[in-house]
Amino acid sequence: MVINEDDIPALARGCAVLGTGGGGDVRTGSLAARGAIRAHGPVPLVALDELPPDALIVPLSGIGAPTVSHEMIHGEDEPKRVAEEVERLFGRRPAAIMSSEIGGANGVAPVAWAAQLGLPLLDADGMGRAFPEVQMVSMYVAGLPADLVIMSDVAGNIVTIRPVDGLWSERLARAVCVASGSHALMADYVLTAEQARGAVIEGTVTRAMAVGRATEGAPEPLIALRDALRAKLLITGKLTDIERRTTGGFVRGSAVIEGTGADRARTLTLELQNENLVALENGQVRAIVPDLITVVDTETATAVQTESLRYGQRVSVLAWPCDPLWRTSKGLETAGPAAFGYDLAYVPVEELA
Amino acid sequence: MVINEDDIPALARGCAVLGTGGGGDVRTGSLAARGAIRAHGPVPLVALDELPPDALIVPLSGIGAPTVSHEMIHGEDEPKRVAEEVERLFGRRPAAIMSSEIGGANGVAPVAWAAQLGLPLLDADGMGRAFPEVQMVSMYVAGLPADLVIMSDVAGNIVTIRPVDGLWSERLARAVCVASGSHALMADYVLTAEQARGAVIEGTVTRAMAVGRATEGAPEPLIALRDALRAKLLITGKLTDIERRTTGGFVRGSAVIEGTGADRARTLTLELQNENLVALENGQVRAIVPDLITVVDTETATAVQTESLRYGQRVSVLAWPCDPLWRTSKGLETAGPAAFGYDLAYVPVEELA
Repeated sequence: MVINEDDIPALARGCAVLGTGGGGDVRTGSLAARGAIRAHGPVPLVALDELPPDALIVPLSGIGAPTVSHEMIHGEDEPKRVAEEVERLFGRRPAAIMSSEIGGANGVAPVAWAAQLGLPLLDADGMGRAFPEVQMVSMYVAGLPADLVIMSDVAGNIVTIRPVDGLWSERLARAVCVASGSHALMADYVLTAEQARGAVIEGTVTRAMAVGRATEGAPEPLIALRDALRAKLLITGKLTDIERRTTGGFVRGSAVIEGTGADRARTLTLELQNENLVALENGQVRAIVPDLITVVDTETATAVQTESLRYGQRVSVLAWPCDPLWRTSKGLETAGPAAFGYDLAYVPVEELA
Repeated sequence: MVINEDDIPALARGCAVLGTGGGGDVRTGSLAARGAIRAHGPVPLVALDELPPDALIVPLSGIGAPTVSHEMIHGEDEPKRVAEEVERLFGRRPAAIMSSEIGGANGVAPVAWAAQLGLPLLDADGMGRAFPEVQMVSMYVAGLPADLVIMSDVAGNIVTIRPVDGLWSERLARAVCVASGSHALMADYVLTAEQARGAVIEGTVTRAMAVGRATEGAPEPLIALRDALRAKLLITGKLTDIERRTTGGFVRGSAVIEGTGADRARTLTLELQNENLVALENGQVRAIVPDLITVVDTETATAVQTESLRYGQRVSVLAWPCDPLWRTSKGLETAGPAAFGYDLAYVPVEELA
């Protein structure tokens, strides 16, 4: 299977939904992906079991402030320099590119990087959604050593970090990113196909495209999306209150949705930290991270990023289960409610009323 | 020749003088050097022409806030991790350690790192004095590519930077250093003995020790020091005004010395930026960076750091020529008056009244 230019809008729509409000705007990534496919041809999409055990997979993501990413597209040189550094350190060429984070911009842009490098894209990612911090990836949860980060910036610098653990990789990569102008391309956990088994979330590129396609031309896009995601529809209503502040590079705040139609007299409150993390109704949790909570436009079922939430918007909120990896004790320790400072227990969304 | 524990006090005294007010306090470096020699034995001091052309020289320095260095000594693991990374990247063991900066703490501490690694110390450095920024080294002035920086911190992280130029190496290394707790060990410009010819300042470890020894037991330490340095004695007097502010990790300010004895009725003003950079009398330059300007206690001829200048101190100011490399156009561009924001022409100290 290959990814053509025509596949990009569906992929982008799906990645936005899996972004749960974060992960960066998919528009710039889409432009880059379409341009790269026009210039270099379609990108083969490969499954993990199509790769030989020692094939090198390079998980890539953009790191930085979303507002900067909107205005700067990674050039062709940045993925090339990362691939050269991988070859220098491992003594062989990468076999495939992987998205570190399927949610948001980082789900779409890897198509561009793969096209530019003439490499296939692996049908997998490291989150199955979007998360804000470097260590919140499946490779970390699976216990792979977080022993190498390669960063490449617009100026042409290459920085290689051999951190003692995932938290240090976040801290050092963030500092380098800020010094580079809050925008860098990052390879984290370069791994072999053998190591990737059970340590990446498979099928997520295909899934993002399927999610994006589900609403194309559907008579009731919201219902089509809910069914494609096997999601709960938590509420349909109107955004009546939104509080947001940007601190330390993160958007934090909350949003209140008052129900309309069948949902009138109900109120849902969302707690945000880049992504939508908790949905509360009458003080009760309706869905909570690492399960996925996405706000969509009620009419078109297009995902709305936390930064784009506006008073008066007619929106619906969908919630659905995360990958089982995030429900393990290491998964919850890494990206469960406590990792974001919430004193709330995790209960799977399908068990909540 | 070897460096024994007994040599350290003289080396430290000399390094403090060559530090021109900056380079960090020599006390912690001395403790580390003495401890390492006791544990691992004396450190061979080798001249550049004793090394085979392909011998790898690792220039090392501590980078960070001086106030942090006073309280944290680099462990044995940090130089070991840097040496391992050098071996990984170059495929062979380092042959010698070099001080990147002979002035101040970074002139003494490399004795400890060499002892811990069981390697000789090269009788050379990259400045012949102290300078505040990473790119202000002779290797940069000589045109060696600033293409590799290796950093190691107390936590155990290793960061390798392949910067596009020396200014980016400063910017990225500084960011990594701050993220690591404002204290890291850094190898900059790993080079072969062949590359080092003309690109390092030779004989500076020997010189620092000779400068330190000159005042030991001398009846007139100030005169002995002046003669050992072939320096001009700009003034002997009393510190009557000192203004200092710490901004962006640097100490900036000025100090006024009013002459006493034969110098009464004269006043010298020093402009400081970590180091003493300009000496002015009646608005006329008496000495200016990159020439060396050091404030010493008049009685003992012990160097006084810019951070230790105090109202009422009885001090003398010495100034002497820098290495000829700093007087080339690239040298002056890198570390001349304009590089520190002064709109003053450089005139060699020996040509000034």
